[in-house]
Amino acid sequence: MIVVMEPNATQAAVDATVKRVESLGLKANVIVGTERTVVAAIGNKREHFKESLESGEGVSAVVPIVAPYKMASREVRAEPSQIKVLDFAAGAGEVGFIAGPCSVESEEQILETARAVKAAGGTGLRGGAFKPRTSPYSFQGLKEEGLKMLATAREETGLCVVTEVMGTSDVDLVAKYADVLQVGARNMQNYRLLEAVGKAQKPVLLKRGPSATMDEFLLAAEYILNEGNDQVMLCERGIRTFEGHTRFTLPLASVSYLHRKTHLPVIIDPSHGTGHTYMVPDMAVAAVAAGADGVIMEVHPDPSTAMSDGYQTLTFAEFERTMRRCKAVANTLQELDREEKASS
Amino acid sequence: MIVVMEPNATQAAVDATVKRVESLGLKANVIVGTERTVVAAIGNKREHFKESLESGEGVSAVVPIVAPYKMASREVRAEPSQIKVLDFAAGAGEVGFIAGPCSVESEEQILETARAVKAAGGTGLRGGAFKPRTSPYSFQGLKEEGLKMLATAREETGLCVVTEVMGTSDVDLVAKYADVLQVGARNMQNYRLLEAVGKAQKPVLLKRGPSATMDEFLLAAEYILNEGNDQVMLCERGIRTFEGHTRFTLPLASVSYLHRKTHLPVIIDPSHGTGHTYMVPDMAVAAVAAGADGVIMEVHPDPSTAMSDGYQTLTFAEFERTMRRCKAVANTLQELDREEKASS
Amino acid sequence: MIVVMEPNATQAAVDATVKRVESLGLKANVIVGTERTVVAAIGNKREHFKESLESGEGVSAVVPIVAPYKMASREVRAEPSQIKVLDFAAGAGEVGFIAGPCSVESEEQILETARAVKAAGGTGLRGGAFKPRTSPYSFQGLKEEGLKMLATAREETGLCVVTEVMGTSDVDLVAKYADVLQVGARNMQNYRLLEAVGKAQKPVLLKRGPSATMDEFLLAAEYILNEGNDQVMLCERGIRTFEGHTRFTLPLASVSYLHRKTHLPVIIDPSHGTGHTYMVPDMAVAAVAAGADGVIMEVHPDPSTAMSDGYQTLTFAEFERTMRRCKAVANTLQELDREEKASS
Amino acid sequence: MIVVMEPNATQAAVDATVKRVESLGLKANVIVGTERTVVAAIGNKREHFKESLESGEGVSAVVPIVAPYKMASREVRAEPSQIKVLDFAAGAGEVGFIAGPCSVESEEQILETARAVKAAGGTGLRGGAFKPRTSPYSFQGLKEEGLKMLATAREETGLCVVTEVMGTSDVDLVAKYADVLQVGARNMQNYRLLEAVGKAQKPVLLKRGPSATMDEFLLAAEYILNEGNDQVMLCERGIRTFEGHTRFTLPLASVSYLHRKTHLPVIIDPSHGTGHTYMVPDMAVAAVAAGADGVIMEVHPDPSTAMSDGYQTLTFAEFERTMRRCKAVANTLQELDREEKASS
Repeated sequence: MIVVMEPNATQAAVDATVKRVESLGLKANVIVGTERTVVAAIGNKREHFKESLESGEGVSAVVPIVAPYKMASREVRAEPSQIKVLDFAAGAGEVGFIAGPCSVESEEQILETARAVKAAGGTGLRGGAFKPRTSPYSFQGLKEEGLKMLATAREETGLCVVTEVMGTSDVDLVAKYADVLQVGARNMQNYRLLEAVGKAQKPVLLKRGPSATMDEFLLAAEYILNEGNDQVMLCERGIRTFEGHTRFTLPLASVSYLHRKTHLPVIIDPSHGTGHTYMVPDMAVAAVAAGADGVIMEVHPDPSTAMSDGYQTLTFAEFERTMRRCKAVANTLQELDREEKASS
Repeated sequence: MIVVMEPNATQAAVDATVKRVESLGLKANVIVGTERTVVAAIGNKREHFKESLESGEGVSAVVPIVAPYKMASREVRAEPSQIKVLDFAAGAGEVGFIAGPCSVESEEQILETARAVKAAGGTGLRGGAFKPRTSPYSFQGLKEEGLKMLATAREETGLCVVTEVMGTSDVDLVAKYADVLQVGARNMQNYRLLEAVGKAQKPVLLKRGPSATMDEFLLAAEYILNEGNDQVMLCERGIRTFEGHTRFTLPLASVSYLHRKTHLPVIIDPSHGTGHTYMVPDMAVAAVAAGADGVIMEVHPDPSTAMSDGYQTLTFAEFERTMRRCKAVANTLQELDREEKASS
Repeated sequence: MIVVMEPNATQAAVDATVKRVESLGLKANVIVGTERTVVAAIGNKREHFKESLESGEGVSAVVPIVAPYKMASREVRAEPSQIKVLDFAAGAGEVGFIAGPCSVESEEQILETARAVKAAGGTGLRGGAFKPRTSPYSFQGLKEEGLKMLATAREETGLCVVTEVMGTSDVDLVAKYADVLQVGARNMQNYRLLEAVGKAQKPVLLKRGPSATMDEFLLAAEYILNEGNDQVMLCERGIRTFEGHTRFTLPLASVSYLHRKTHLPVIIDPSHGTGHTYMVPDMAVAAVAAGADGVIMEVHPDPSTAMSDGYQTLTFAEFERTMRRCKAVANTLQELDREEKASS
Repeated sequence: MIVVMEPNATQAAVDATVKRVESLGLKANVIVGTERTVVAAIGNKREHFKESLESGEGVSAVVPIVAPYKMASREVRAEPSQIKVLDFAAGAGEVGFIAGPCSVESEEQILETARAVKAAGGTGLRGGAFKPRTSPYSFQGLKEEGLKMLATAREETGLCVVTEVMGTSDVDLVAKYADVLQVGARNMQNYRLLEAVGKAQKPVLLKRGPSATMDEFLLAAEYILNEGNDQVMLCERGIRTFEGHTRFTLPLASVSYLHRKTHLPVIIDPSHGTGHTYMVPDMAVAAVAAGADGVIMEVHPDPSTAMSDGYQTLTFAEFERTMRRCKAVANTLQELDREEKASS
């Protein structure tokens, strides 16, 4: 860490900072500049000292140099991780495609959708049985009944089932039926829930909160990893900005950033990330082009009658076309990668 | 609701929209404009139909006219609510001042602070026993031991104890010691937790999530009210924006907005809302001037050694001065209000 | 426009609103709802009445239904426009690639870069001669000397020259040497400058301001179109959000949105849109996959010694590889488009 | 500056960085940490080297330690500046109140308003003669005719006239009639205009751009100061965020921040900063409580018929009440300041 002192900080304040740094088990290196003094704190400790130093007398700012997360970092594990469940694979060269309705509504609806997803080349089936809804007056999901329908769809199609768990007390129940536990964006910093899914023996799809920084996102993953579960996928689903023509702003550069910082696979959600059906196909293809390890999309037999999220849901025909384009772009880029490797 | 059709929507699409509106139990009123058609859906139903209409063929946008929350609204209860616990009162003309450390660290620390808060005119004591921390490697709080220390401080000073509850399984324990249950910003949309504190018989301080819209904030309160607990205080603690010189951006206009839309008291948190000690005093006074029903501040015997949040924490002397200024401004404005009433 | 009255608006207020709507030459259609009244204002007039109605007694909100811009809209011109200068073409199926250094630094630097851009398949050359710099103490560009160097590079390579014009008094000078006049993000709402380039007989590359809404962006284009210049390209270069790991957040969904609303070509700038060299290649490819009509990138013989923007600039080798990938993806998608057309 | 190297940066990269730092006339101090190396660059140079270093091989980040602006900084001038024109004074203990319509509409309108502003205790008169409008189809102002009306109002009331200048070619004309030249938010980074008003011999009210960082805002002021004009007032008028219930988000903590970093007076604009008439009075009072050196508000004889901005404009009665409250709070706080000084 670099502790930047105020221009008018006294020698006593500098001395106190040095003492504080040393009391934290770090080595202090004082650099006297022309306008202010800087204290470099050296050692292999992580973020949690930052704020202790920040409140010191005469301290202007503390600049961390080391990422605050460990197990999620590339420094701890240099090679990309891959999550593999049934035929679904994401990371380390594999692109996984998950699709399905926002809410499980009936057995017929989920079975019909699962078949369409499978036929178009998807390997994961999404569908909410427990629904976190902004309003207490909205449809809250079919609960266990919905989970059973998802399991039935897996039986028939072999698709890996991805579904949300909303609270600690539901983890066991959801884990009984699902292959991947989804932690929703609203719960990204629900630490009790992160700990609970960290203890479950199932892969986790962790959605980014709409105002989470990357450090916060990776530290949320770290909560799960820290409990012994290293099967975590990071899902970028858009951030909250001033833009009003999309529901959220989908920053595809998150893929590049996360690939540089972490070994965990990165999944893009163009449905929530845009909030409009007509934008989903192009953003799905763009996600693949940006190097995403997976894409998760909302699909429904008849979006205009969907119980939730219909405005951002694809029909089967739109989904099929989108998959064709995504796969063609993925193939094209992989071909170029192979050529590059061959010629180098 | 107003359903705006696309300029090129077919008559069939308009007809389908009308049918859909009617199937929801609303009356449809079709207005044919020069460039497009609009369908007004009339009836006293709330938000959850919006999205069903939005996904219809040829629909450009659906504009809600009625707020999606009920029990929190001024339309249901016109008079401002007041929360009163021991000597603490907020709302309907009363301004409550809550202060204390970020984390409860020791009995001595919390007792000393409670005395200073009381002496300066505060009526509530804050202090975290269960701490939601961004990093799993940070100090997580003293837990029940901390709750006991808070209760001890209440015994001695008479201050009302406000402390955070992080998960559903902690609600009973925290409620045993605390007077007000705080739901933190990270948990604003943790619906399981909202339901649980809604069932508790204690007032709730609900913090706004840093990217929550006002409708989302009020709907989170609605989850609590909907469980039968009408003792809810709304706490504005800053939103996430592009600004880097403050940790969060504190929008004081939230007070005016919330007072217009809801009867619930509005508390301002200038400590988290700025993230810098030197900004807290002026923003606390500004909060009172803006009409807030309460202010919550971080105070510590020695902020430079605080285990958390030291960089945004006041010393006892700074707090005492801030309280003096807040109270003087509150008095001045109340005096003017009385004069206005008298002369009208 | 839809004028939504307050729930408690008086009949007098509704009558006044109707009178006001009619005085603006629009037809008023009153809809009495269960909770409030709505006045639909019908007619083919544009946005400038919105605010007159908004300030009326008892008015809660005014919801515009028609886009505020005309000449930029798809409703006025349904077919996509194409901008064609020398070998450069963007829009209506053509993807244009513009590249070059942030600043023109020397004849050797710009010539060397132009050759590399040409060799890799680019058709436009960018390079700043007049530089808008955040600090008055930063390098401000070579001015006319830089323009001459750009013209020399065009002579040799045939690339179309794109360069920024910062003020009204520079328009003639820049237009003398450049093929495309760039209006920078900081000047997107500098209306005097928009009028001036609207009078010039040259295509314009209009960059989106980092906090401009889409309506503001399209209305800025409308200023140019309104002066008789219909050769406008819209450039998305990222918006300001809370994200700190990129300089700006690049929302590729802007392509889908703009293609739906306007016939003008959309160019993506992944260099400014991310602010980091390592992110540029993947985001350039993603831009093409998202359907952009062009990409503009920063390239320099030696980014590590560039006078500006080196941190987001590609080397020749990186650029060559990026172009190969962009073109491969463009070809793959065009091939699929042709197949779709053939089979339909 | 602190140059943070990548964890895997080679010794050659560190050596190159050191060489680069030295070539910029700075002293390099290498600190070898446990995970990475850091190079402290010491010397009294400002920001414009940051980006040259950032693009170096193996460089992870460059952290500036010194503010990029000079003449605006407290380090160059420790005492607060005061702007004084006629009876208007802002800064160094004085709070200036500027009010008037968005647009000058007629001599009667501006005279009537000026009298009301004067009567309520205002010292400055605002009113737009040249109007920067989002749409080219909106009312663009009365131009010179409007300027003459403002001058007439000054003759009668003695109020100082504040009005916007939109382009370099209008500076002389506006300066002929106005006392203070306003640079609007859209033009905050129109450097040609900043240079032009920097050369004029009139005070400048510089509005913050809605997505400008504080460094960008202060560097815009630096452009003016750098031309020899040190009469600059900084106006916070709200930033663009995700919030939809206000037009902009007004961060009053800007006052605390700017007072710490610069000697220039800080003016708050609660009209644009909220966009809703009903919010203006409380935010004006809050601005004074937060320590602002001035407040600028929109007032009109009949806001419901105003040609622009009526939805955020006060009536004379509302303005009079707001002024009474602002002045009472200012007096209360000044009284406390005097007591504090006396007792210390």
